Amino acid sequence: MKILFIGDVVGSPGREMISAHLKELKQTFKPNVTIINGENAAHGKGITEKIYKGFLEQGAQMVTLGNHAWDKREIFDFIGDAKWLVRPANLPKGTPGVGYRIMNLNGTKMAVINLLGRTFMNPADCPFRKADEILTELEGEADVIFVDFHAETTSEKQAMGWYLDGRVSAIIGTHTHVQTADERILPRGTAYLSDSGMTGPLDGILGMDREAVLHRFLTGLPAKFEVAEGQKQLNGAFIDIDEKTGKARKITRIQRFDNQMIY
Amino acid sequence: MKILFIGDVVGSPGREMISAHLKELKQTFKPNVTIINGENAAHGKGITEKIYKGFLEQGAQMVTLGNHAWDKREIFDFIGDAKWLVRPANLPKGTPGVGYRIMNLNGTKMAVINLLGRTFMNPADCPFRKADEILTELEGEADVIFVDFHAETTSEKQAMGWYLDGRVSAIIGTHTHVQTADERILPRGTAYLSDSGMTGPLDGILGMDREAVLHRFLTGLPAKFEVAEGQKQLNGAFIDIDEKTGKARKITRIQRFDNQMIY
Amino acid sequence: MKILFIGDVVGSPGREMISAHLKELKQTFKPNVTIINGENAAHGKGITEKIYKGFLEQGAQMVTLGNHAWDKREIFDFIGDAKWLVRPANLPKGTPGVGYRIMNLNGTKMAVINLLGRTFMNPADCPFRKADEILTELEGEADVIFVDFHAETTSEKQAMGWYLDGRVSAIIGTHTHVQTADERILPRGTAYLSDSGMTGPLDGILGMDREAVLHRFLTGLPAKFEVAEGQKQLNGAFIDIDEKTGKARKITRIQRFDNQMIY
Amino acid sequence: MKILFIGDVVGSPGREMISAHLKELKQTFKPNVTIINGENAAHGKGITEKIYKGFLEQGAQMVTLGNHAWDKREIFDFIGDAKWLVRPANLPKGTPGVGYRIMNLNGTKMAVINLLGRTFMNPADCPFRKADEILTELEGEADVIFVDFHAETTSEKQAMGWYLDGRVSAIIGTHTHVQTADERILPRGTAYLSDSGMTGPLDGILGMDREAVLHRFLTGLPAKFEVAEGQKQLNGAFIDIDEKTGKARKITRIQRFDNQMIY
Ligand SMILES: [Fe+2]
Ligand SMILES: [Fe+2]
Ligand SMILES: [Fe+2]
Ligand SMILES: [Fe+2]
Ligand SMILES: [Fe+2]
Ligand SMILES: [Fe+2]
Ligand SMILES: [Fe+2]
Ligand SMILES: [Fe+2]
Repeated sequence: MKILFIGDVVGSPGREMISAHLKELKQTFKPNVTIINGENAAHGKGITEKIYKGFLEQGAQMVTLGNHAWDKREIFDFIGDAKWLVRPANLPKGTPGVGYRIMNLNGTKMAVINLLGRTFMNPADCPFRKADEILTELEGEADVIFVDFHAETTSEKQAMGWYLDGRVSAIIGTHTHVQTADERILPRGTAYLSDSGMTGPLDGILGMDREAVLHRFLTGLPAKFEVAEGQKQLNGAFIDIDEKTGKARKITRIQRFDNQMIY
Repeated sequence: MKILFIGDVVGSPGREMISAHLKELKQTFKPNVTIINGENAAHGKGITEKIYKGFLEQGAQMVTLGNHAWDKREIFDFIGDAKWLVRPANLPKGTPGVGYRIMNLNGTKMAVINLLGRTFMNPADCPFRKADEILTELEGEADVIFVDFHAETTSEKQAMGWYLDGRVSAIIGTHTHVQTADERILPRGTAYLSDSGMTGPLDGILGMDREAVLHRFLTGLPAKFEVAEGQKQLNGAFIDIDEKTGKARKITRIQRFDNQMIY
Repeated sequence: MKILFIGDVVGSPGREMISAHLKELKQTFKPNVTIINGENAAHGKGITEKIYKGFLEQGAQMVTLGNHAWDKREIFDFIGDAKWLVRPANLPKGTPGVGYRIMNLNGTKMAVINLLGRTFMNPADCPFRKADEILTELEGEADVIFVDFHAETTSEKQAMGWYLDGRVSAIIGTHTHVQTADERILPRGTAYLSDSGMTGPLDGILGMDREAVLHRFLTGLPAKFEVAEGQKQLNGAFIDIDEKTGKARKITRIQRFDNQMIY
Repeated sequence: MKILFIGDVVGSPGREMISAHLKELKQTFKPNVTIINGENAAHGKGITEKIYKGFLEQGAQMVTLGNHAWDKREIFDFIGDAKWLVRPANLPKGTPGVGYRIMNLNGTKMAVINLLGRTFMNPADCPFRKADEILTELEGEADVIFVDFHAETTSEKQAMGWYLDGRVSAIIGTHTHVQTADERILPRGTAYLSDSGMTGPLDGILGMDREAVLHRFLTGLPAKFEVAEGQKQLNGAFIDIDEKTGKARKITRIQRFDNQMIY
């Protein structure tokens, strides 16, 4: 089972990178499934139904979210019917949407889970115990389990990696918008990467216009954050899973740049 | 001017990686100067005089610190005389030690600055304005300027990168203990990397024993954190600067692993 | 049902205030039950078995805790047998101790619940939902319900007050160590006070030696915090509940000072 | 020198309480100067020129602010000319407005300073050192010095109280919107109160509609916060200063309620 994961898509530059590169990425990696984190897909905050459906039309099978899930109010109108949209699982009971989904890919059952960290983030239910709970529900129901762990700190992410090692096929971090270089397969077979990085502007600050963000850091005064313009990047990961054992065979970081290469 | 930077050295496993790999790294990269972040060098918290001097003896020319600078009390006894030890510059007036140093390397004057971020960290003076202040002091005094920006969030790190682009030769992040894969030379010539990663245990959580850290995440109960054992890693960066212009020519991430390779 | 509640007892000065004033307070208020928050009773951090038993011997019937519950390691040895010790209820499953207790006072069943806030505090389970859960368990089991809500912010405390109005007899805040002047009976009958204040040193900072705390605020350098000396205060609240309806009839703030009166 | 201070005015209910009670308060306390914290005066967030001028017309001589100073954008248009408006002093250089003002009251020079805390708040310059700086500037320029310390935690507030004891006439806390019951004159003559409390709705959560705030605490989902309706409160403090020595003679908490009294 080959998985292509694309990290936090930010605004139209992010969506443009999907349009421009998904075909090549599919040719290169031949994924059985493509998962996109779309929490910033609509102008940097939240997601709309149109964008969600656009991702599916362009060849994604699943869209994950994060702390920005609710930033566009229209999500409450369509999340109930959005079969391939997963919001963080460890939100309070009664939260619209679901925290994991199972899809059948040519006979292989694959579960996608979205979890939220708590360190330096808003209160949420314990993501470790929620993972336990979901894994119990998934017993016998999933051959391959993929976790998008949306968290701020490297400590909570590494903790989750070790906690789930051997119990899920892959855990890929999102939220910091910067790809980390610590991809590895943990001893008991789980592919791990602290953060996959973002997809969108290259020359902003986390994808947002850098003048506004700098203004805020320097003055503390209010500033309207817009999605940055200019060069663009796509970041993600490719994971190859043995669907018989659910263990990872391989994890590779993915980076694509538009306009001019910077390295 | 070739700079070898080695990220947060954690405890004896980190020091062992320095001993084991510095020779090879020097042969490979032929640095004119080696800088080590040593804020976690003593059992994961702080630094001792013996360790600081050991770093110099092994071939480092400068040691930087971070939020853990004061964890070992003996630092107050030797920091006043530690000529090549730099603590965060944006600490209150009267703080022992200095926030930057200038060294003369065969006629090239190189300044090393240590700055602390503020987002999700303890209060400190504004690192952006402190950078301005130091850069004014350095006018005409430094051909090459290196910044170790010790900060938690990618947003504050990227903001500092853009803020200092063209004004310093390199800004390398530390503190998260996980290397990022976003090395680049910014448009006006500053080498940038959000985090260089740590040097020490590979299989802990930020270098600490994972059972204890997991216990804390899972139960909230107190746990004694010890430096982890087992496989080891070294993370850092190599930066090549044109000493005539102070602009970066090249930045490369460095990773070394002991025992068994994991990739 | 008359309840005397005494806020966060800090170190030996706090314990001395209990010894010195409990008799007078009992004569004045004639409580049926006395509850003490003891999370800082042992040198400002945690509680020992000896101190816990001392509180009972001096006439308390129940001791509540807070975020400092585990600061003295010996609590793990005795909390399992400490029948009248209640730690925060919204801690993870498996946490030693219990989060509420029911006592029978001459035929009136009284429940004491301890809850922890989450804003600017460590992660915990949702205190609002945990309160719901406990109130369901208490149905038919308690005539009077007292909540010690140990939380940092006034917003979370007021939110809990309104959330539980009419469902519990009293909710008294602890943790900030400063008594608030907002005691009232909410419209549906719940007695409310944002914080009862602390019991211990008057001239420290939250009861701790002010030189050390100021040193930390001014320098960010480590400082050993000791319980302050000198004048002392006792803070708490008196609540009168109609045990037939479980509704509050009256809430009064309590303040006592030693040595010299300051008002 | 008699000072009447009125805590965080929230929206139109807060402004109505000023209109309804200022006359009586002036008759009762006969203040020489009235100071209003207006950071939430415009719909709970920020202040407008009209509201600022209205406060002066109704008999205030000075208006202080806090972390919500910039919430209404029009402040940038009028703060430059608003002679009796003081924003937090420890904001970065270049921030519009001023951090303290001196007024001449029948020959007595009175300084009003606004400072912002840092614990659990946005980064700011050190309020302790900024206080030192201002007090140096005020040497010989002010007979009476009043500080509105806008801060979240009781620890930072008490620390500032002790730090300024004997150096200012009064330090009154704001921001938590709940009045504390710890008014006192510190040993060297400074009147102190951790928080004066707010002026506006009585039955909201910090003055905002409680259904929306509770919704947010319970679900984490977005909610539009409106100023609450119904019963109203006014909170503040009265301080009497010996203008010869600048020392406080007396501090009294003030509470007024509308519609029905609740105590
Ligand atoms: Fe994101
Ligand atoms: Fe996010
Ligand atoms: Fe570190
Ligand atoms: Fe650090
Ligand atoms: Fe306490
Ligand atoms: Fe506490
Ligand atoms: Fe306010
Ligand atoms: Fe405020």
